[in-house]
Amino acid sequence: MSSSSVNPKSVPGRLTSSYSEVQASRLDVSLPLPSVLKSSFSVVDGPKSSAAGNPEEIAKLFPNLFGQPSAVLNPGGSSVLSKDTSLKIGVVLSGGQAPGGHNVISGIFDYLQHRTSGSTVYGFKGGPAGIMKGKYVELSAEFVYPYRNQGGFDMIASGRDKIETPEQFKQAEETTKTLDLDGLVVIGGDDSNTNACLLAEHFRGKNIKTRVIGCPKTIDGDLKSKEVPVSFGFDTACKLYSEMIGNVMTDARSTGKYYHFVRLMGRAASHITLECALETHPNVTIIGEEVAAKKQTLKSVTDYITDIICKRAELGFNYGVILIPEGLIDFIPEVQQLIAELNEILAHDVVDEAGVWKKKLQSQSHELFEFLPPTIQEQLLLERDPHGNVQVAKIETEKMLLQMVETELDKRKQEGKYKRDFLGKTHFFGYEGRCGLPTNFDANYCYALGFGAGALLHSGKTGLISSVGNLAAPVEQWTVGGTALTALMDVERRHGKFKPVIKKAMVELEGAPFKKFASFRDEWALKNRYVNPGPIQFLGPAANAINNTLLLELGAQA
Amino acid sequence: MSSSSVNPKSVPGRLTSSYSEVQASRLDVSLPLPSVLKSSFSVVDGPKSSAAGNPEEIAKLFPNLFGQPSAVLNPGGSSVLSKDTSLKIGVVLSGGQAPGGHNVISGIFDYLQHRTSGSTVYGFKGGPAGIMKGKYVELSAEFVYPYRNQGGFDMIASGRDKIETPEQFKQAEETTKTLDLDGLVVIGGDDSNTNACLLAEHFRGKNIKTRVIGCPKTIDGDLKSKEVPVSFGFDTACKLYSEMIGNVMTDARSTGKYYHFVRLMGRAASHITLECALETHPNVTIIGEEVAAKKQTLKSVTDYITDIICKRAELGFNYGVILIPEGLIDFIPEVQQLIAELNEILAHDVVDEAGVWKKKLQSQSHELFEFLPPTIQEQLLLERDPHGNVQVAKIETEKMLLQMVETELDKRKQEGKYKRDFLGKTHFFGYEGRCGLPTNFDANYCYALGFGAGALLHSGKTGLISSVGNLAAPVEQWTVGGTALTALMDVERRHGKFKPVIKKAMVELEGAPFKKFASFRDEWALKNRYVNPGPIQFLGPAANAINNTLLLELGAQA
Repeated sequence: MSSSSVNPKSVPGRLTSSYSEVQASRLDVSLPLPSVLKSSFSVVDGPKSSAAGNPEEIAKLFPNLFGQPSAVLNPGGSSVLSKDTSLKIGVVLSGGQAPGGHNVISGIFDYLQHRTSGSTVYGFKGGPAGIMKGKYVELSAEFVYPYRNQGGFDMIASGRDKIETPEQFKQAEETTKTLDLDGLVVIGGDDSNTNACLLAEHFRGKNIKTRVIGCPKTIDGDLKSKEVPVSFGFDTACKLYSEMIGNVMTDARSTGKYYHFVRLMGRAASHITLECALETHPNVTIIGEEVAAKKQTLKSVTDYITDIICKRAELGFNYGVILIPEGLIDFIPEVQQLIAELNEILAHDVVDEAGVWKKKLQSQSHELFEFLPPTIQEQLLLERDPHGNVQVAKIETEKMLLQMVETELDKRKQEGKYKRDFLGKTHFFGYEGRCGLPTNFDANYCYALGFGAGALLHSGKTGLISSVGNLAAPVEQWTVGGTALTALMDVERRHGKFKPVIKKAMVELEGAPFKKFASFRDEWALKNRYVNPGPIQFLGPAANAINNTLLLELGAQA
Repeated sequence: MSSSSVNPKSVPGRLTSSYSEVQASRLDVSLPLPSVLKSSFSVVDGPKSSAAGNPEEIAKLFPNLFGQPSAVLNPGGSSVLSKDTSLKIGVVLSGGQAPGGHNVISGIFDYLQHRTSGSTVYGFKGGPAGIMKGKYVELSAEFVYPYRNQGGFDMIASGRDKIETPEQFKQAEETTKTLDLDGLVVIGGDDSNTNACLLAEHFRGKNIKTRVIGCPKTIDGDLKSKEVPVSFGFDTACKLYSEMIGNVMTDARSTGKYYHFVRLMGRAASHITLECALETHPNVTIIGEEVAAKKQTLKSVTDYITDIICKRAELGFNYGVILIPEGLIDFIPEVQQLIAELNEILAHDVVDEAGVWKKKLQSQSHELFEFLPPTIQEQLLLERDPHGNVQVAKIETEKMLLQMVETELDKRKQEGKYKRDFLGKTHFFGYEGRCGLPTNFDANYCYALGFGAGALLHSGKTGLISSVGNLAAPVEQWTVGGTALTALMDVERRHGKFKPVIKKAMVELEGAPFKKFASFRDEWALKNRYVNPGPIQFLGPAANAINNTLLLELGAQA
């Protein structure tokens, strides 16, 4: 193993001298802390935990950790942590970026500065690979400072590698031994936190002192539970996308002639799309989970959109805004079926110009294929991944739906059922939302998550995910603690084996956010109730607003 | 002529009850006014004016207006305007949206409320067509209120019609007579202000009392002169795009594996792209005017980008951000030539699969065609407008350049000159920038432009464009006046006749903004000097910042 400390000067770090005024103004903002973190506290255990599903299998997979109680920080108490402790803590960013990651690290760093003596924080570079390869940087106040309240993950960078094989576990073990690590904080999504728990189990099982704490990160909003009310980054990303959607709405209303089809990042789940709908009130919003539950087809989704366009035309509105989740296609069974058949056919047969190959498709798939716009047909046949498979992720769903709606409108026009001219525009809002300056909420939430992770490690905990609650209240009243990662887990059967997984939290059709949306969508469809949330503000009355989804899920008004 | 007043209640107007917190917080902001507008003033004429070019032709086209002096508002003086005057003023929005249009109208309305008695403002609906068709709404304080400091043009909507034919002039004349209009304010870009001047000339020539004042609007920034330092909307649009570019940069730096090709709105001129470059410091910025001046080819632009990517790879940077102006293709002569030849061939010949038709292309055009990526070739051959012409505007330049760079990198890889993997992402930032909430600068500037337009009409002026100057100073010190529209004009020969035109202001390669960019671009190319401007702020230290282009052109530091 080539373990090496990275010289900060060789890293293309940030120069605050070239910061914009807004970036600079965020650097020295003093963040509010939950009051429990402001004076002495003790870490108190709750009752024994179970698992999200199949507890007997989870118990087998995590013999040392299963059943761990959750922990909560209480003010005062008898078991106040010693300030004389010196800890060596590693921190790693795992997976896609989410606004606030730098603040989690700042929180860990500041906790150790304030509550321990002579502690060290190592930042593993480039994600979990940094742990395996022993690539790290020792964090100092000067090194951390330029990243405070700033977007991105570039302080130590992230990566998508996983620590999976026995050799990789061995490598991680060696790094933690070399650095004499007391603890490791894994900042990541569902997969990364599952990985964090496996690592915690491994270390505990081998009597290695390194403890592991997770932190809930993902703009997609699909890592959440009762104890972890939201993943960080979701708030900022949704507000950034909503700013742009609001502007496009104003544009649509002003010109009166465009339908904007907006695809939103968010992977499989439709949380971002739902939140943006609650923030902006678009005419049409497609929620993947509903499409799946109702077993809708591409044709029925197309008809739904087209019907609203036709009704709006009758009311004199020849414009509108339509939100589409990135993962839509994954929710439509017929599309999955078609793609499976195509992969099979393309692997063995020649695709002839005359289309004889299509006879190999089952009739439903054949019908769907013929229903697809030619450019999408072409994409399905031509764009293949290295394994020869159709690249579903590359399909620009917003363009596909626009073309299908155009075709349907042409048909209705010929039948005399639609009389207007239709002009569509497509957008994909994605990368510009992952790295924005975190909102006040995300900045505060992440700082508390980091502080909490520090406290959990300080008190000797492992296999927990940092959990900050009571988020609808002012920051001072937020609760801080940790939830057993095993309590969030279920198993999936892969290659004949049980694999532990933190289940992705999908949009609940019985949940408050979806129900609110569903109760308003007909009004939004035909009346123009557009809301322009405007740019994220750091000062002033709107600066501390929390996203609708979180407030509704917490039972607070949104 | 069917003249009809629109009942505001039938208009799908805005409900402030559904405003976001940020929208609502902007409604009651009291805007600062230039001090000259805060007490009594007189309107003083400057020296006789000429034209931007061909004064003798402009004199012939505008016999009644040519040579008019510019006007400036001076505090106090003997010729203070009477507060007892009652005026009937029409206002129209013309062309594409720009943040701040609603504030120009608010400014006109407030001027008349404060400085005259019993005046009326009519808002013509849907652009110049509203004048011709006599479609208008009478503005009231209640009607105007929800639009204060808000984006969009939806208060009265805009349109792209022109008042051109004798019948159309006649229609406009009848509307102004029916409404007994003392004045008309045309809020628009270069074409609309040319049209405003023709209307002023027409009315003056026929002794019709209606006077016409223009206002400089366009996000593209290509309507400006010494007296009109900037068009409104440019500041907001550039800041919105720069927010997103800044985020994409942070993303690029954090993931370390993507090149983002960002195309920016802005029509023919590259002002927006240049301003965004000055705000964010991208690795590559293509300025159309420079490409034209250096007679660059698509190949040389591709090579320029590819060279920087290769150099960055050697430095260990496998990511970057590249800005491309919307109008790039229009600046490359060889592309224009190819398109002209294609239009000719496609009009008369069959495009055979075997490609025999290509022999009809001249050798340079043939070479260029073969150099283009297949999808672009297809677009050129298939996407045609109703006249059968190739649709240049539909070409997604950012995708085209990305594909050409990929091809060139593949070639260099085979030659052993480039060893990394290249991943590109494309973006088009356009519609989401035209309708944002105006920045403090645009809000103040527009309000002053509107106030100034009111004062000019009040003092009996016509054929001027509202001009607010000294913009680098605090608002209180801004100057207010009007510039003779004929002074901004030159002629173009079309169909054997001289047509008056306000020349589009293109990026000056000898101007301070381009020079600053040129002096830094090599550093930005290889070092990472990214700036994240963050979201537009309405409060706090960064809220009143003015765009770099304007400051540099005014000789102030940026």
